[in-house]
Amino acid sequence: MIFTSDNWAGVHPKIFTAMEAANKGLQGAYGADGTSAKAGALFDEIFERKVKVFFVTTGGAANGLALSALVPPFGAVLCHEVSHVQMDEAGLPELYTGGAKLLPMAGAGGKMTVAAIDEVMRVYGTPMVHHVQPRALSLTQATEYGTAYTADEIGALAEAARGHGLRVHMDGARFSNAVARLGCKPADITWRAGVDVLSFGATKNGAMAAEAVVFFDETLAHEFEWRQKRAGHLWSKARFLAAQWVGFLEDDLWLDLARMANGQARKLADGLKALPSVTIEQDVDINEVFVAMDDALATHLRAAGGAFYDWVYPGDLWQGRLRRLVTSYATSDKEIEDFIAVASKL
Amino acid sequence: MIFTSDNWAGVHPKIFTAMEAANKGLQGAYGADGTSAKAGALFDEIFERKVKVFFVTTGGAANGLALSALVPPFGAVLCHEVSHVQMDEAGLPELYTGGAKLLPMAGAGGKMTVAAIDEVMRVYGTPMVHHVQPRALSLTQATEYGTAYTADEIGALAEAARGHGLRVHMDGARFSNAVARLGCKPADITWRAGVDVLSFGATKNGAMAAEAVVFFDETLAHEFEWRQKRAGHLWSKARFLAAQWVGFLEDDLWLDLARMANGQARKLADGLKALPSVTIEQDVDINEVFVAMDDALATHLRAAGGAFYDWVYPGDLWQGRLRRLVTSYATSDKEIEDFIAVASKL
Amino acid sequence: MIFTSDNWAGVHPKIFTAMEAANKGLQGAYGADGTSAKAGALFDEIFERKVKVFFVTTGGAANGLALSALVPPFGAVLCHEVSHVQMDEAGLPELYTGGAKLLPMAGAGGKMTVAAIDEVMRVYGTPMVHHVQPRALSLTQATEYGTAYTADEIGALAEAARGHGLRVHMDGARFSNAVARLGCKPADITWRAGVDVLSFGATKNGAMAAEAVVFFDETLAHEFEWRQKRAGHLWSKARFLAAQWVGFLEDDLWLDLARMANGQARKLADGLKALPSVTIEQDVDINEVFVAMDDALATHLRAAGGAFYDWVYPGDLWQGRLRRLVTSYATSDKEIEDFIAVASKL
Amino acid sequence: MIFTSDNWAGVHPKIFTAMEAANKGLQGAYGADGTSAKAGALFDEIFERKVKVFFVTTGGAANGLALSALVPPFGAVLCHEVSHVQMDEAGLPELYTGGAKLLPMAGAGGKMTVAAIDEVMRVYGTPMVHHVQPRALSLTQATEYGTAYTADEIGALAEAARGHGLRVHMDGARFSNAVARLGCKPADITWRAGVDVLSFGATKNGAMAAEAVVFFDETLAHEFEWRQKRAGHLWSKARFLAAQWVGFLEDDLWLDLARMANGQARKLADGLKALPSVTIEQDVDINEVFVAMDDALATHLRAAGGAFYDWVYPGDLWQGRLRRLVTSYATSDKEIEDFIAVASKL
Repeated sequence: MIFTSDNWAGVHPKIFTAMEAANKGLQGAYGADGTSAKAGALFDEIFERKVKVFFVTTGGAANGLALSALVPPFGAVLCHEVSHVQMDEAGLPELYTGGAKLLPMAGAGGKMTVAAIDEVMRVYGTPMVHHVQPRALSLTQATEYGTAYTADEIGALAEAARGHGLRVHMDGARFSNAVARLGCKPADITWRAGVDVLSFGATKNGAMAAEAVVFFDETLAHEFEWRQKRAGHLWSKARFLAAQWVGFLEDDLWLDLARMANGQARKLADGLKALPSVTIEQDVDINEVFVAMDDALATHLRAAGGAFYDWVYPGDLWQGRLRRLVTSYATSDKEIEDFIAVASKL
Repeated sequence: MIFTSDNWAGVHPKIFTAMEAANKGLQGAYGADGTSAKAGALFDEIFERKVKVFFVTTGGAANGLALSALVPPFGAVLCHEVSHVQMDEAGLPELYTGGAKLLPMAGAGGKMTVAAIDEVMRVYGTPMVHHVQPRALSLTQATEYGTAYTADEIGALAEAARGHGLRVHMDGARFSNAVARLGCKPADITWRAGVDVLSFGATKNGAMAAEAVVFFDETLAHEFEWRQKRAGHLWSKARFLAAQWVGFLEDDLWLDLARMANGQARKLADGLKALPSVTIEQDVDINEVFVAMDDALATHLRAAGGAFYDWVYPGDLWQGRLRRLVTSYATSDKEIEDFIAVASKL
Repeated sequence: MIFTSDNWAGVHPKIFTAMEAANKGLQGAYGADGTSAKAGALFDEIFERKVKVFFVTTGGAANGLALSALVPPFGAVLCHEVSHVQMDEAGLPELYTGGAKLLPMAGAGGKMTVAAIDEVMRVYGTPMVHHVQPRALSLTQATEYGTAYTADEIGALAEAARGHGLRVHMDGARFSNAVARLGCKPADITWRAGVDVLSFGATKNGAMAAEAVVFFDETLAHEFEWRQKRAGHLWSKARFLAAQWVGFLEDDLWLDLARMANGQARKLADGLKALPSVTIEQDVDINEVFVAMDDALATHLRAAGGAFYDWVYPGDLWQGRLRRLVTSYATSDKEIEDFIAVASKL
Repeated sequence: MIFTSDNWAGVHPKIFTAMEAANKGLQGAYGADGTSAKAGALFDEIFERKVKVFFVTTGGAANGLALSALVPPFGAVLCHEVSHVQMDEAGLPELYTGGAKLLPMAGAGGKMTVAAIDEVMRVYGTPMVHHVQPRALSLTQATEYGTAYTADEIGALAEAARGHGLRVHMDGARFSNAVARLGCKPADITWRAGVDVLSFGATKNGAMAAEAVVFFDETLAHEFEWRQKRAGHLWSKARFLAAQWVGFLEDDLWLDLARMANGQARKLADGLKALPSVTIEQDVDINEVFVAMDDALATHLRAAGGAFYDWVYPGDLWQGRLRRLVTSYATSDKEIEDFIAVASKL
């Protein structure tokens, strides 16, 4: 009954197999190998266009490096107040951008709004010397509240951003889950909707440690390899990073895994919402369920072996009762059923 | 009828005279001179204790360097959303701290509140590896809305900060005006109230370019000289920076000038509040008057030679009608009277 | 006949097996798992004391993060002019230290000397405000010229460093090869010899991507987890990084692999030195052979399928004739014999 | 008998007068004033072309900000091993460039050589991902050994730099003295010789604290104002910084003062070279005299009131006997004569 995080799951066997397949003989280092080439081609394919892709091992690295390509040190990035770049990377974007400022905004369900963007730009948008200069908007798909933007929502935000002279970055740590939920093409919610750079995460969806920085506007990738290198994020045995992507993307494994994870969250939410002492607080679009739950029930569940985190976000609407439950491709029906059963007994 | 900013005023003659007095022969560089020693002693005197003081030329430098002594690169600083460090220094604190994050909060009248501090610390206050680590609170005295904290207010904020393990920095770009307004001792609203480091500004109150970083807790000043030096803020002919402080502090010139500036703002506010089309939007504690004023009146005043800025802060309560009017020691009664007279004619 | 680099080799099967063994069910993220605990215990064991260890994936990250724990942003690090931190990390130490300066020195065979340390400290060692402040010495074991310091040599350098108030960092990207060569205990050439922090590399010796920052003086590791995190070098599925170390360290696999690699280099060197047109330019202590070789021979070898790099280091003693040949645990006798045979035919 | 540094001198009266002249009424802040415009025009005039100039108060700031406009954070700057940027700014260039590396080289008389540039570029000049990317050469005119490059020497260095794809920065902390020495036009040793950006210093030559970043290639000044601002180097009362330049440049005061300082050094050197126990170690092109002198004589001179610094540079050719003596516009004949007389008596 572990619902702590999707990063508690292991590596999917198919991905492991792909890594083993790459372990053949001597091969060129730093990406000059066949597996890296193959992974690159798979990205072109699933995004229906030529893209420029760089592989790293953490979502933080992907986000920070991507943003460093978009904003100068005296620049700023608009983001949601609960976004990972703002809350969960211990200042990583600031390190990699050389000190750019994040300008957080509120928004229901973890989603940014055009109105909030306009308000930040009203305050910071003039090119006066005293202000940091906003140059990018970073949106998270799926969001940190487990909701997914529709393609139209992203298009509207990107259009607003562009109207203010901002480039658009998407933090896609759970991009797979969003695509699975929306049933769309990856292109529909990225470059076709106005996204310039995507941090595409595989780690939370079955890989070992595999994140990709995907540039749709290749001019932004200028000299990016030095940014990657000087951050210590260029692997010598790069084939093993690329191999994870091969295993992940081939035969739509990534979508299968995301659908499984999403489906288990749906089941979990359906079971929980029937309980009088639990309320589902956000749309369950992906593999996360945000609920309000009393301490008594939380304690009861934990005593029975349930594991999940109390969740803390700005705006204490829930008076300490917010809990996050995350499923993964490895979550079994039994775990969910047992959890609901235990909860029902209180 | 210039009410743009107090930094449009020149250098007060007594300060100029002090600089000339320092221009005698060869003297030790980088602070090894008699004027620097004298200025240091004056700081000890007005703060009623031994302090460790460093002189720089801009408020930005003073704030950024002070904060760099309080927080690590993975640290964070709590501040008001309209504070200078957040809004008006083009990312300077981020540069000097090596990328620490500013965590802005709202608060009426430009003032921080204990509740808002507690809320930020509820979200960011746990020592978990994912979060930036808040280590300092930066409050502005007088505030960016022209209000002054009382000693009790500062004491309460500092106590809350300390309870959360935060050091306390005060941005005192208009510290003089606050002291003049409160009629208190400088110590009362700084170290006695729990402030660890003060950025004390003289520039806006009659100096040429003179800001001081005043450490009350000298342990925090450890190796500060290297921070100052590597930022290019250590003057070789340091005596001319110190001399400004001698002129400023001797015979309470700083308080006289602040009282003059404050008094003129009071007169201006009193005249304006009588007008039906103007409302005074903030307490006029110091030398700034924030008013809501229609475009018609603003245009009329400007056509007649009035100068002041439209003001943009987060939260557009005034729908573009907020204007800031600033007086200085050099503001004449006639300017104020003329301004009111012109305004009255519309 | 690939002698380009040891990082062209794949992952040793035993290490792969250890990673697979870690792929069991859900486990705590960010190091809260059994494999991470086991790896930590292995470090304690091989270093014969309690150490504090952090796992990252590149040698650059290990070095940069280690140095950031030793020097302030206004600090400096003494290093060899051919060291990786100086030449091959695209400015990574500067990024992670917040701008500290590297002070390179020359030295035969890639080794630092006490005399050179003394000379740098003569110039930079005074605590005056104008200078960066040297706080650490970084030495490379084995060196970038394929030589290994003896325990006595390290002890002498560390003693000199300590006499100047410097902490000692060891870049051990090929630490295994040095230990295998010297037949010593790991402790003998690290903490017993005065080393404070070791970057211990497994990647070049059979791992996938596994480097460890090993603190012998645990006080230096204070808040290191935030440095690691904000650089994007904290894996969520940390067990797979730790597992590489388990496979690497258990049953002395690391020493076996290093001995194999070293031995092959020895054979290669022995074969080459018999050739009139080749001279061995450095002691072949580990798995690297630096030779001077004419272009004609190099071209001939490459035409026959030989692969190795022309090498460029400061001081062009070889007029463009320096070549580096690297073996690994995966280098076969046949490759070496074929290479010598081809070379002999010219 | 003070020969410590030219920055021990005060402010020349004409410069003080210019500052007082700027102290008239309210004027626009941050450079929007008549004095700033006038100073800008003077720069255009003395450089015989339109230039883009920014005023700061320290040479460190000028150099660091200039370099930050030339190189990316993963870039590098070629400089002399005794240059101020390398030795005397406590890591400032690293801070402002975001961590770029300085690549120092040796060279007689403090001068860089084309051969040394070529050698550094042989090592670091390939656009491979592992290396920092050299993008600029920084030369010092006059040098840190008190010698002056001829226009031809600068032209040759700049041509070599450009051939390697490097931009050219000149640290002109004592630019005045070099121009006075060479009897050339400022343009001859800057843009006409291939210099892109000049840090022009007035502080050491009679100003209070006035340094200028002069862009000859204006495209390099793109967004420079944000770099200046976020470093805390944009004065609000900018007219007083500009005024120093007006006083300095008008009526060729700068050249008069430089000639006076240079002439006094010449006299000092001529007197000293007659002494058997003193040798002049560098060409005395400007206002600095580097001599080798025994401790006995140094002690004797200091006991009699002589003041000068023992000097420490890389390469201890003088076994601790190197001393630097600096004159300024304020150095009197009598001081020199007394000094020689005292020295002669030992």
